[in-house]
Amino acid sequence: MLRTHTNGELRLTDINKEVTLCGWVQVVRDKGGMIYIDLRDRYGITQLILEESKTDKAVLDTVRTLSREFVIAATGTVIERLAKNDKIPTGDVELKVSNVTILNPAKLPPFLIEDKTDGGDDIRMKYRYLDLRRNPVRANLVLRHQVAKFTRNYLDNQDFIEVETPVLIKSTPEGARDFVVPSRMNPGEFYALPQSPQTFKQLLMVSGFDRYYQIVKCFRDEDLRADRQPEFTQIDCEMSFIEQEDILNMFEGLIRHLFTEVKGIDIGEVSRMTYAHAMKTYGSDKPDIRFGMEFKELKSEDIDLTSGKGFAVFDDANTVVGICVKGCAEYTRKQMDELTDFVKRPQIGAKGMIYMRYNADGTLKSSVDKFYSEEDLKQWATTFGAEKGDLILILSGDGDKVRKQLNELRLEMGNRLGLRNPNNYSVHWVVDFPLLEYGEEDDRWFAMHHPFTSPKPEDIQYLASGEYGKIRANAYDMVINGVEVGGGSIRIFQKELQAKMFEVLGFSDEEAKHQFGFLMDAFEFGAPPHGGLAFGFDRLCSLFGGSDSIRDFIAFPKNNSGRDVMIDSPSTIDQKQLNELKIKTV
Amino acid sequence: MLRTHTNGELRLTDINKEVTLCGWVQVVRDKGGMIYIDLRDRYGITQLILEESKTDKAVLDTVRTLSREFVIAATGTVIERLAKNDKIPTGDVELKVSNVTILNPAKLPPFLIEDKTDGGDDIRMKYRYLDLRRNPVRANLVLRHQVAKFTRNYLDNQDFIEVETPVLIKSTPEGARDFVVPSRMNPGEFYALPQSPQTFKQLLMVSGFDRYYQIVKCFRDEDLRADRQPEFTQIDCEMSFIEQEDILNMFEGLIRHLFTEVKGIDIGEVSRMTYAHAMKTYGSDKPDIRFGMEFKELKSEDIDLTSGKGFAVFDDANTVVGICVKGCAEYTRKQMDELTDFVKRPQIGAKGMIYMRYNADGTLKSSVDKFYSEEDLKQWATTFGAEKGDLILILSGDGDKVRKQLNELRLEMGNRLGLRNPNNYSVHWVVDFPLLEYGEEDDRWFAMHHPFTSPKPEDIQYLASGEYGKIRANAYDMVINGVEVGGGSIRIFQKELQAKMFEVLGFSDEEAKHQFGFLMDAFEFGAPPHGGLAFGFDRLCSLFGGSDSIRDFIAFPKNNSGRDVMIDSPSTIDQKQLNELKIKTV
Repeated sequence: MLRTHTNGELRLTDINKEVTLCGWVQVVRDKGGMIYIDLRDRYGITQLILEESKTDKAVLDTVRTLSREFVIAATGTVIERLAKNDKIPTGDVELKVSNVTILNPAKLPPFLIEDKTDGGDDIRMKYRYLDLRRNPVRANLVLRHQVAKFTRNYLDNQDFIEVETPVLIKSTPEGARDFVVPSRMNPGEFYALPQSPQTFKQLLMVSGFDRYYQIVKCFRDEDLRADRQPEFTQIDCEMSFIEQEDILNMFEGLIRHLFTEVKGIDIGEVSRMTYAHAMKTYGSDKPDIRFGMEFKELKSEDIDLTSGKGFAVFDDANTVVGICVKGCAEYTRKQMDELTDFVKRPQIGAKGMIYMRYNADGTLKSSVDKFYSEEDLKQWATTFGAEKGDLILILSGDGDKVRKQLNELRLEMGNRLGLRNPNNYSVHWVVDFPLLEYGEEDDRWFAMHHPFTSPKPEDIQYLASGEYGKIRANAYDMVINGVEVGGGSIRIFQKELQAKMFEVLGFSDEEAKHQFGFLMDAFEFGAPPHGGLAFGFDRLCSLFGGSDSIRDFIAFPKNNSGRDVMIDSPSTIDQKQLNELKIKTV
Repeated sequence: MLRTHTNGELRLTDINKEVTLCGWVQVVRDKGGMIYIDLRDRYGITQLILEESKTDKAVLDTVRTLSREFVIAATGTVIERLAKNDKIPTGDVELKVSNVTILNPAKLPPFLIEDKTDGGDDIRMKYRYLDLRRNPVRANLVLRHQVAKFTRNYLDNQDFIEVETPVLIKSTPEGARDFVVPSRMNPGEFYALPQSPQTFKQLLMVSGFDRYYQIVKCFRDEDLRADRQPEFTQIDCEMSFIEQEDILNMFEGLIRHLFTEVKGIDIGEVSRMTYAHAMKTYGSDKPDIRFGMEFKELKSEDIDLTSGKGFAVFDDANTVVGICVKGCAEYTRKQMDELTDFVKRPQIGAKGMIYMRYNADGTLKSSVDKFYSEEDLKQWATTFGAEKGDLILILSGDGDKVRKQLNELRLEMGNRLGLRNPNNYSVHWVVDFPLLEYGEEDDRWFAMHHPFTSPKPEDIQYLASGEYGKIRANAYDMVINGVEVGGGSIRIFQKELQAKMFEVLGFSDEEAKHQFGFLMDAFEFGAPPHGGLAFGFDRLCSLFGGSDSIRDFIAFPKNNSGRDVMIDSPSTIDQKQLNELKIKTV
């Protein structure tokens, strides 16, 4: 080793030891008589000290050529610091340097290698290897390593076996768009990169592997939204001889283990909520339940507290629904306008917002006073369980659509009121998702989860009757702080039911056989009941790190055009390569 | 859970318990009055028993419809077996069945799901999910899981961090052929799949990550030899602030740990051997040193015991070299002919083989007696350190070429004499590989390891003088039982030296900048001294499993045409996909 210790290691107990440290020059402070260097590595910072009168002149000369990010080796004696620094673990000592070797000089980096940097996103991505030197970015990757490690520990202890499934697989048109790989040995044919190892893990269950997991790269060639990556990592799991409840217990156990080990947090009970309840109460299939503001209805299939009073907006809507925001009755006109503007943004698309203040003096004041009597408003207040000082925000419109709008408003209020602290965690399941959803554009039914998800036994009747919208699936998502971190389902394991599902999804027999024949065959040779789920590993890490961005938790991420700007990829390839692959760009 | 226990779990201590088991029917033995079922899962086999007079008729009727590989759940009481079976851990007990549920019926599998199967390679690959049910194949994947687990444990304990590097990277013409992925968002451009994360791990060192590892899929679009796969897995590692000796110590430590934990074997000292010594003494850069038969020279640059006696074959050769095979002087004419045929096979390419017997009676008898006197032969015997009863096999020809031929003969003799037991392990390093090798066909120098490998400091002079063949690299391979399981090098970390290397390899400045500009840039911002290595994980697992074939240790391998015959991939894709990617097949 070129060093005897790391820069995070020396303590008072090391005093008088002769040591050699290696690392990067964080900063040189030349005070004339004394020169101080902060030497940095992955483990910390140690202060080096040289004294004009006592250090060899050649060494001083070398040190005076150093600047930020030079890589050096420094040898000397550990001494006690006069002015201790209690902000760093090595702050009680310093290294009295007898020799310094420059291992590699450094140009001035294009941005500051400090916790708060002056580098913008683009420059930091181009020089990602320098960005990764910064403590917060490095800490993210260390966290990621730990989450992976404790995931493996937990699953290993539960008899899961990690099995690597292939990366070069087969393209299937169902689902998102595949990345494909031309085969040179089989001209005109292509591999596809997996969007998930779904069919392989099911085959492993048919093989009797019983408890499988894999931390695995997956790929989707989608137009990238702000926080999507073309390659991403999943914790992929599957179990046999189980029921839904077993999966939920096993994997809330995993998440509990991770919170305990990585964050030192006990997450308490992990509650379950049906999809129907989540949509009705929060307008979302991934509600953030760390704060109340549950939806209350003024008009719906079950109730009508608004019609016939001459307010056409409510009269024309089939749904009037709102939230009660505690203690915000005093919101100013300006604040109310901001909220109205918020819900009217095209991404949300509400036509407007109605509000009602339950003032401190007990009076009720709404933006629709001219249509509704105080009695009406009192009834509303009761419906919302409102108290003095509360503010009620109401949207109206069409069923699920208005609920989704209100969900956005609810989350916005949570943000405004500081109720969504990323370091305050709430974990729950949403269960009983619909099996199928109707795609207006394509005029056909789509699998909400994927074509291998099993309907709830009590709803299988609707497969026969053609009432596809009524079928609930044995499918579940785990939600943390309003973010879907994972999901899965109990799978179909009988050939006939799987064939029926493909039929409902518009596959011809031939298409089903061409694409999934191997799976249908496998189901005939003794497939066990099985199910599983996958966690978005990048997302999970970002949640543990208290961040919104998965990109911060990926060593070398791509930008929104799918480019790695550091290595400048994708790029053109040689004509020779194209010729060998027997393809042409057009 | 649909079961209370697994089929590997029940013991005498469980007697009288009511349990439910799930699994696959291995075999049904219907003895009329009694029916026995061997029920199998990943954990073992448990015997179920039903008695004509005592079991419910409906249950008996169900059981009589069962055949091999049906998936069932069986409930009953654990009882002591009268005739115990000491071959299986559950052999003291059996399950007296009260109820059986068929979870899924099974067609007759196309081959026997038993340790010794009647299925050929092709059918087993097509139904790989059934092949994986067989104990030996499952055991291979469990072994693989354990090797991965203990690898991670060791490296985690040594402060290594696992970092995931990208799969969608950039194509570089140096080295093997890349698989490429057309980019839809960047038409006309392509990603490449990594042949190794080489440049990324070096960038992580520049980032200060210090100790990196990853168990990672890599890809090579090569014409597949018997035991190559287009996708394969590496244990990829890199360290900073180290010298070669540190890497060797760290990773022989890893292999030692794996042997201890996975095999319960202490591998003892891991010796080192130079490339030059390995080539001279074994004719191979990955010698199997579990048995002697070191090469001895009769004619070379240093010695000549054969010339001028009228034997033109030896006179025309610059090298005459052989091995002494202990105790084989009695080999028959037929055996000698077999060996001669062996070395004359086109894959080996020797023109012939000379032998000399050191008979039990002390006489020497060679196939070239008419050219060489007994004195000559005695001198040969002395050179080989031969004793009575030994057989000496001699090849002649051109330097390294004849040594490689003799290497094949030596290994063949090792095989014939049972000296290469796969469960007897020998681990050693080969070091000081040449930096560059000359490619006759292309008339240029190639990097023997890769372009990032550093020359030995004492040989850097030959870079300037242009004597490239003399330059040794700080490069090393780990060899187990004559198989290269891993290799690596100390890397170049200075921009100028890296630029010089690219120049020697025939890159123009522009090409070097286009392909590796990011790495050259990175070296200017403070790159630490670093080095590392990669182990072939599939190969390592096959060695631990005592097998020659890596395919047996991969869940879903591809065949020699790069096809997955189970899922039938690669395959054609939709015209719509090609249109979106703006490519055409030609």
